[in-house]
Amino acid sequence: MAAFARRKAERLARPDPSRKRALDAHAAELARLLNARETFCTASSCDGRVLVLDTDGAGIQKKNCRWLLVTHGTCVKDDVMTALEKATGDAVFKFEPFVFHVLCRELQDAQLLHSVAVDSGFRNSGITVGRGGKITMINPVVFQAVRSTHCLEVPLSHKGRLMVSEEYIDFLVHIANQKMEENIRRIDRFHKGLELALEAAIPADTLAPEGPEKSHSVYVHRRKRRSTREQADPSREMEPQDDPESSLDLFAEP
Amino acid sequence: MAAFARRKAERLARPDPSRKRALDAHAAELARLLNARETFCTASSCDGRVLVLDTDGAGIQKKNCRWLLVTHGTCVKDDVMTALEKATGDAVFKFEPFVFHVLCRELQDAQLLHSVAVDSGFRNSGITVGRGGKITMINPVVFQAVRSTHCLEVPLSHKGRLMVSEEYIDFLVHIANQKMEENIRRIDRFHKGLELALEAAIPADTLAPEGPEKSHSVYVHRRKRRSTREQADPSREMEPQDDPESSLDLFAEP
Repeated sequence: MAAFARRKAERLARPDPSRKRALDAHAAELARLLNARETFCTASSCDGRVLVLDTDGAGIQKKNCRWLLVTHGTCVKDDVMTALEKATGDAVFKFEPFVFHVLCRELQDAQLLHSVAVDSGFRNSGITVGRGGKITMINPVVFQAVRSTHCLEVPLSHKGRLMVSEEYIDFLVHIANQKMEENIRRIDRFHKGLELALEAAIPADTLAPEGPEKSHSVYVHRRKRRSTREQADPSREMEPQDDPESSLDLFAEP
Repeated sequence: MAAFARRKAERLARPDPSRKRALDAHAAELARLLNARETFCTASSCDGRVLVLDTDGAGIQKKNCRWLLVTHGTCVKDDVMTALEKATGDAVFKFEPFVFHVLCRELQDAQLLHSVAVDSGFRNSGITVGRGGKITMINPVVFQAVRSTHCLEVPLSHKGRLMVSEEYIDFLVHIANQKMEENIRRIDRFHKGLELALEAAIPADTLAPEGPEKSHSVYVHRRKRRSTREQADPSREMEPQDDPESSLDLFAEP
């Protein structure tokens, strides 16, 4: 327990790439909600983004990957066209939905997040248990990554030559924006579900967890979706190397 | 322990949708390798596939999704063109890489799979712990899903109208085939890594796991990739409802 608290304090104190820039609006709120509890420590995250990447090199290995465009909100056809004019290799348009990583003190804490994430539509969410963590060990550090299958990956240029029409780009941008809206609805669902689940769970900071505290809010594992529209309002730049997935390297610990 | 063994016997005995058809070649070999061990029970899997889907309905909810084409090997432009002629809604071309689900008796078994999966390039792999599984419970049933980010999702038609040229389809098919080749290389890497890791681990069927048996094969968590080319040779049809991800419902247990 003390080890986790120490580690959390260190992480939150240090300047780290995903904190140089203001967190995306939704991720920031979720971070506040979770970091207020002892059992969670948020790590890298992204509300969702549209990217235009230019890749040189043969095959499908990501060699010399350059970012021509990144936006965390609505994307606009003209911006995409402008970005593509700068492409010299194989340009790809990508929509990446919400990604959220959380270090959890106990496996059951990760399970709580996982349950809410899946209910919210983030079906690819999963738990990673650090190599130091064995089931017999008290408080293994676990890691919950919230992910979705709800993406786009569209090759657009080949050796600098645009392979689609402007009309297609307009069509694609429209679809990406729809996906972003649905993505935001899911994040909102996740946030609400998390609030309920945390209130209903045994509070992490009580000394004697004899049983769940009485609460009027009960999180019920539900399949039905609520739909609340909300628009993301981010303005953050991410460098290519700030790949949220690289946070799995956190487990390369002594 | 006995509960897991019983559950495994039941699963492997019953006819289940993903077994109606011959398992993809690679998945079948991996299943043989893992099911020979007490601690693992393979579930749904797919070597990887190219799909052309037709979806009707507004927005991005998957309403009335029809499969126009599915292939688990090399895809051919003419087949894609033929499939698209049948589209009446919004057709999408998808490449989905290797997906592999394994029920594990212990968390450490899932961790072993996870480690090998990530080393093999399947970076989106994760562990799910069933709701019945608490950290204090002996032998929680955990679930390792092997996944990758290495996909394509490309809208091609809008209300039945093709939005790209035949040349673009050719370009896309070429990219999909390259991704499938890389996918197969990763599966092979995963298989080899798994063989080493299983040999090095404490054998699951010994009664007294005092320590790792001496072995000449030692699995070292490695970052370098080996590249072995191998062609998938599958012939399996999957219905839309046979979504490997729906196997997460396995955890809706009493």
